[in-house]
Amino acid sequence: MTKKSEQPKDQKSKSQEGLTIKKGENFSEWYNQVVQKAELADYSDVKGFMVIRPNAYSIWEQIQSYFDQRIKTLGVRNAYFPLLIPESFFKKESEHAKGFAPEVAWISNKDENTTERLAIRPTSETIMYDSYSKWIRSWRDLPLRINQWCNVVRWETKATRLFLRTREFLWQEGHCVYETKEECDKETLQFLEEYKKTCEEILAIPVLVGRKTEKEKFSGAFYTLSVDGIMPDGKTLQMGTSHNLGQGFAKSFGISFLDRNEKKSVPWQNSWGISTRLIGAVIMAHGDDHGLVLPPKVAYNKVVIIPLLFKGKEQEVLKKAKEISNKLEKFNPLLDDRDYNPGRKFGEWELKGIPIRVEVGPRDVEKKQVTAVRRDNGKKLEFKESNLIKEIEKTLEEIQDYMFKKAKSDFDEKITDVKNIAELNKAISNQKVARAFFCGDSKCEERIKEQSEGVKSINMPLEKNSKEAKCFSCNKPTKTVCYFGKVY
Amino acid sequence: MTKKSEQPKDQKSKSQEGLTIKKGENFSEWYNQVVQKAELADYSDVKGFMVIRPNAYSIWEQIQSYFDQRIKTLGVRNAYFPLLIPESFFKKESEHAKGFAPEVAWISNKDENTTERLAIRPTSETIMYDSYSKWIRSWRDLPLRINQWCNVVRWETKATRLFLRTREFLWQEGHCVYETKEECDKETLQFLEEYKKTCEEILAIPVLVGRKTEKEKFSGAFYTLSVDGIMPDGKTLQMGTSHNLGQGFAKSFGISFLDRNEKKSVPWQNSWGISTRLIGAVIMAHGDDHGLVLPPKVAYNKVVIIPLLFKGKEQEVLKKAKEISNKLEKFNPLLDDRDYNPGRKFGEWELKGIPIRVEVGPRDVEKKQVTAVRRDNGKKLEFKESNLIKEIEKTLEEIQDYMFKKAKSDFDEKITDVKNIAELNKAISNQKVARAFFCGDSKCEERIKEQSEGVKSINMPLEKNSKEAKCFSCNKPTKTVCYFGKVY
Repeated sequence: MTKKSEQPKDQKSKSQEGLTIKKGENFSEWYNQVVQKAELADYSDVKGFMVIRPNAYSIWEQIQSYFDQRIKTLGVRNAYFPLLIPESFFKKESEHAKGFAPEVAWISNKDENTTERLAIRPTSETIMYDSYSKWIRSWRDLPLRINQWCNVVRWETKATRLFLRTREFLWQEGHCVYETKEECDKETLQFLEEYKKTCEEILAIPVLVGRKTEKEKFSGAFYTLSVDGIMPDGKTLQMGTSHNLGQGFAKSFGISFLDRNEKKSVPWQNSWGISTRLIGAVIMAHGDDHGLVLPPKVAYNKVVIIPLLFKGKEQEVLKKAKEISNKLEKFNPLLDDRDYNPGRKFGEWELKGIPIRVEVGPRDVEKKQVTAVRRDNGKKLEFKESNLIKEIEKTLEEIQDYMFKKAKSDFDEKITDVKNIAELNKAISNQKVARAFFCGDSKCEERIKEQSEGVKSINMPLEKNSKEAKCFSCNKPTKTVCYFGKVY
Repeated sequence: MTKKSEQPKDQKSKSQEGLTIKKGENFSEWYNQVVQKAELADYSDVKGFMVIRPNAYSIWEQIQSYFDQRIKTLGVRNAYFPLLIPESFFKKESEHAKGFAPEVAWISNKDENTTERLAIRPTSETIMYDSYSKWIRSWRDLPLRINQWCNVVRWETKATRLFLRTREFLWQEGHCVYETKEECDKETLQFLEEYKKTCEEILAIPVLVGRKTEKEKFSGAFYTLSVDGIMPDGKTLQMGTSHNLGQGFAKSFGISFLDRNEKKSVPWQNSWGISTRLIGAVIMAHGDDHGLVLPPKVAYNKVVIIPLLFKGKEQEVLKKAKEISNKLEKFNPLLDDRDYNPGRKFGEWELKGIPIRVEVGPRDVEKKQVTAVRRDNGKKLEFKESNLIKEIEKTLEEIQDYMFKKAKSDFDEKITDVKNIAELNKAISNQKVARAFFCGDSKCEERIKEQSEGVKSINMPLEKNSKEAKCFSCNKPTKTVCYFGKVY
């Protein structure tokens, strides 16, 4: 409290100032400034935990709304499982337990008749599959497709970054059970494809689609598929994963069913998730020197309307601005009629990334038109009032389209083929992602990491190569290609 | 695992059997059976924690979708604050700390440089207002209206009941900040009115609307408004609360602003919430001897379609059923084409409360019609295919309307005026809610509780009485009326 009263309290708060650094100058500091100044997130007093502010939460809501509808179409139903998981559940699947142990936060069970510790969920496989073992009896109960939107806690020891690596984040975790491996394989891939669509069609971020190496797969999985974006600094960001869990969890949790031949069988399972880290991806991928740039499909407010209040014309301009705001209701327009000068308002809404700024001045009123400015490329347009909704719609589509194309061209440029460790290291130091033939062996991968500055495998494209080549690291023959890079 | 393999595994699982008890016979056992057999929730292995299954979660989603849209219209924006709250934050508002202390679950902070314990949020006033103190500078930042949808943990020591009293539940908590008391009063009431609408118009449950007594108000509040439903056993269920928090939290957390006269001022605050306990209210209020009865507005699947597969006519009936399912898409119809006999299917979907069952048999195909059965009153209707969507729409409206009217008539019958403790006790033993003139004094209320079987005040209607009377307990003159009852 004392601290706060020492701060200057002028009407222009810090967050409303523009960026003081360029994206190309210091990417990391630029990111922090955008997050703070566009009022996207704050650190909390608990180390590593974040406050997701409304400007960022609305991005998450747009992602939720799109993705939730997609998975419902695919037969997935939402549910909610407990936050706290008994320690004994964790131990049932040993690889899983080993993978998550260091990151788990525990609470002491407050009940007197037990001393078992309770974990705050880092992920919910174990508590969900305990229920599944009670619910599944027959092939008629399959496929079972359940998803939950919730918070998870992972006590990261690495430095935290808002949205990208925090000790708590929001996500969805889908958990399905199938009669056969084939069905499980098929849908594990299907959910990955939904993630690809979400990234590319909604977030306008192209992704590397592939299979994780044995070393990098999810703890307890049979295999893991992933989509990874390439950020402007050349580091990749894992944006979604879909795991075929095989039958391991089912066996550990006693999930079985009577199959179509009345025989007891062990089902196949998958799990898949995306998280609020996608918000970080949007910031990094599209932001510019003026701040955030939101793809229209993740922008809740797609338009901001700014009346230009020339003296003597205030009333007619304001009236028109309100009229236009009502007309554009489906785009959730913001009408900024505060008594600030227009330049300040332009700056604030550019910083916050609203896709289209609509200016209404006396001349516009007269000519029954508005001036519109695109956030993505700064282009000025004039729209006739009579055709406004259609023009805005079309422009939003163009922005979405243009942003993806621009991101895709950056993405393509970032990928470099390499043939040996020296080339790998050169590519990485040039902020690129390396593509190479790779044997897939964990020891070989460990060696690559040691021979570079901690470079990791990203994933291996799913399309099979016809030609055989040699692993760029150990020279073993292989048909597999793999991406390597520094990762968030 | 051993336990499970001992259970019989026939194709008819337990949950698909009907209720074995009537609502009027043993209300509590009836409730448990509906929750289990309609697959609404399960206890988890962690005592007092529940699994919200898809059939119930979809009710919550309908409530969320309606209410979220309403509050957005009122200028509220969603955000997300950390799950964990430092102990020092809790202690800042002493009444609040005292109220929640017994129910808080703590985790040990895993960071080496601090020994401060962290609470799992039982509610988020303290962590949110710490942020508010950093964000609010000027009257221009007000009103600030933020809401979050999240989970909270309260370590109840009373016996838990699924949905009604569990150690974790889902809710929304709105937290707003205003320049003046008047504005705060006005919106505290406005959010209460939104809760009333949600209960009455969506859940079809009438409520007692009023102000909590000093004894029953929220820990740290200036005053608390509430909506409470009356359940069939005469106990009331608090369904939503809206608290005017006064300026206490603002002072404790150092929230202040420069007002329109450039003077430093302390703002007024409110907070308001509804939770997944509303699902319990829906079950209790509307369920019958066949199971759950969902008001159409909370039913995700508003229609279930059951083909009657007479021999030799299977293909044409199935084809028609699918056609009708496509036609009714906007009602999210379920098409039950499993190879069970129709009677079993009827029973299952009655148990699960789907508002309208549509039967399609060979005769219906021939006559270009369907037979529809209302879940609420069992009435059979015949709808021409050509007019189907309109008929279903109309019938859903009629069901919603009828369910509220029925509930309202039960509600009105449950309220009895009482003039002394003996009458109060008689009313309560007859499973009624008592209405009486009451002085509002906490000591008087304590005495009433002692002189009855733990009867509590519910709330005091907001309309002022013109006539003065005497407190039914202490005879002090008063104009205030209050409801009393047993509470969930």
